[in-house]
Amino acid sequence: MTEATRVRIAVDAAGTDGGAAVISDAVEQVLAGHADLGFVLLADPDQAAGLSSRLASERVEVRVCEHALPADMNAAGAIRRGQGSTMWQALELVREGQADAVVSGGSTGALMALSRHLLGTLPGVERPALMAAIPTLTHPVWMLDLGANIHVDARRLLEFAQLGHVTCQVLEGKAPTIGLLNVGTEPGKGPDVIREAARLIDEDSALDYAGFIEADQVFSGTVDLVVCDGFAGNVLLKSAEGSIKLLFASLQAEFRGSFCGLLARRRLKRLHDSLDPARHNGAPMLGVRGTVIKSHGGTCSRGFARALELAALEARKNLVDCLERQLLAGY
Amino acid sequence: MTEATRVRIAVDAAGTDGGAAVISDAVEQVLAGHADLGFVLLADPDQAAGLSSRLASERVEVRVCEHALPADMNAAGAIRRGQGSTMWQALELVREGQADAVVSGGSTGALMALSRHLLGTLPGVERPALMAAIPTLTHPVWMLDLGANIHVDARRLLEFAQLGHVTCQVLEGKAPTIGLLNVGTEPGKGPDVIREAARLIDEDSALDYAGFIEADQVFSGTVDLVVCDGFAGNVLLKSAEGSIKLLFASLQAEFRGSFCGLLARRRLKRLHDSLDPARHNGAPMLGVRGTVIKSHGGTCSRGFARALELAALEARKNLVDCLERQLLAGY
Repeated sequence: MTEATRVRIAVDAAGTDGGAAVISDAVEQVLAGHADLGFVLLADPDQAAGLSSRLASERVEVRVCEHALPADMNAAGAIRRGQGSTMWQALELVREGQADAVVSGGSTGALMALSRHLLGTLPGVERPALMAAIPTLTHPVWMLDLGANIHVDARRLLEFAQLGHVTCQVLEGKAPTIGLLNVGTEPGKGPDVIREAARLIDEDSALDYAGFIEADQVFSGTVDLVVCDGFAGNVLLKSAEGSIKLLFASLQAEFRGSFCGLLARRRLKRLHDSLDPARHNGAPMLGVRGTVIKSHGGTCSRGFARALELAALEARKNLVDCLERQLLAGY
Repeated sequence: MTEATRVRIAVDAAGTDGGAAVISDAVEQVLAGHADLGFVLLADPDQAAGLSSRLASERVEVRVCEHALPADMNAAGAIRRGQGSTMWQALELVREGQADAVVSGGSTGALMALSRHLLGTLPGVERPALMAAIPTLTHPVWMLDLGANIHVDARRLLEFAQLGHVTCQVLEGKAPTIGLLNVGTEPGKGPDVIREAARLIDEDSALDYAGFIEADQVFSGTVDLVVCDGFAGNVLLKSAEGSIKLLFASLQAEFRGSFCGLLARRRLKRLHDSLDPARHNGAPMLGVRGTVIKSHGGTCSRGFARALELAALEARKNLVDCLERQLLAGY
């Protein structure tokens, strides 16, 4: 790797369904567009040959690891049996300062556990949160948490709002309007924990709180950042994925064999790519002491490339340092 | 009303955004198709004239009530100030045996509270649950709870499974396969309450339990009945509504002005009607001692007609008696 590569990204090359082909294509795409990036690809022995033969660049290094973690590996298993794995080694590179960011398509639970274990968390943050962008009528809306934390109290929801606020400000240059996911918009609605969180978020004068938001309103783009616990976030995101998939399957059947079928199919394909939440790929793991991006396991090369670019942006903007400063300053 | 009307439905004519026009059209549609049905429409003074002038049938009676409850009326308010309202009077008719079912498009919280208050609940049921059908790739899938119960324990989730099981069996003639909504399908996944509920549902030999189901899988139709708490159910349903609305708005923009635009629009309209979860209208309130159907406030006349037909089906099949027998027999 040359001195000119200002940002180095450690890529866990296992855990992505499309394997070496998707990873190689994504890395090639991103290399072409960003002269300051370098990559270290952590591959298991089966993958390594496929990656090396396709990527011939002095900005890419392939390292062979002992094994890869299975897709359903849980947190405890990852810590017990993860050493020597592609995910572990990728995080280790960040810990040692040899890489500036990690991108992994592996198990969320394992990535969360190993990130905490190897990199630690920022001051006051007990468990990191997963944030992702979802498509709406007007602009992509960020949402957290998305499955990393299924039990949260009101203070954790406030913390999500704070982490998301700083992240949007650093990555996008403006403070987000914040909505708190609930089953109604009137002040008295919903569980105690959410009503208490609303009070805490509203009290924090640094945050631009817009009130409760219902799941359908998320897709209208009325706020920039949606805060919820990981269970609700997972249900919201997967429900959108499932219903959009259902709709496209029905559309394809509807237009099949028709006069306008071919034309419609191309338009539908383009629309599908722009709307499928899974394609807005790359979920920052916020609160961990290092840049860690979770990629969707089933993503395509363009999606994986987006996750790599998001990792580069976070590293270039020093998001982790900004978050730490904000947390120390009073959050 | 003649003696020939075997099933009488009390309709809360307030609470539906489309007002007297939607209600009248729906009642006309259903009258035409079902010779054994009669209706009592409970209307506020403003609505009554509009309804009476449009519906001239000996099978329809319009009764003028003092007032209608506002759409955001909560449970406590409904009990304190609900007397004399269209919703209260509709439920009162069922309580007095003058009607066999109630259909209302009013506030869910108010309908739940007044149903419990005026009709009571079945043995062992503390709070009723709201069940609705959602469209999938293969067949409409029933799901409960949908917003009526945001705090539940494992026993309540088991109760939802039991109520849903009997309802599907009575209304559709076959026992449903049951999925429990979770953030993963592996046995160790999710919150304690859901893992405990899985154990209880699995132990109940009357139930055909298929394991955990993720929100995206719901739309593939892999199970017939999905059990979840009201918060997750509300988020799932509204996320689907919001993302389908987003998709159709994008499709309309995509096809506007194109060669195939007009053709596509007609097909899209038909598809939209078949898929929009809000159009699969009519949510039985299960566990209450009487047939109560919640209609979506924003539904069209066809949607309201579907809710009326569902009410008639439940009443004809004596669902409430079947549920009571099952609950007394050991549930």
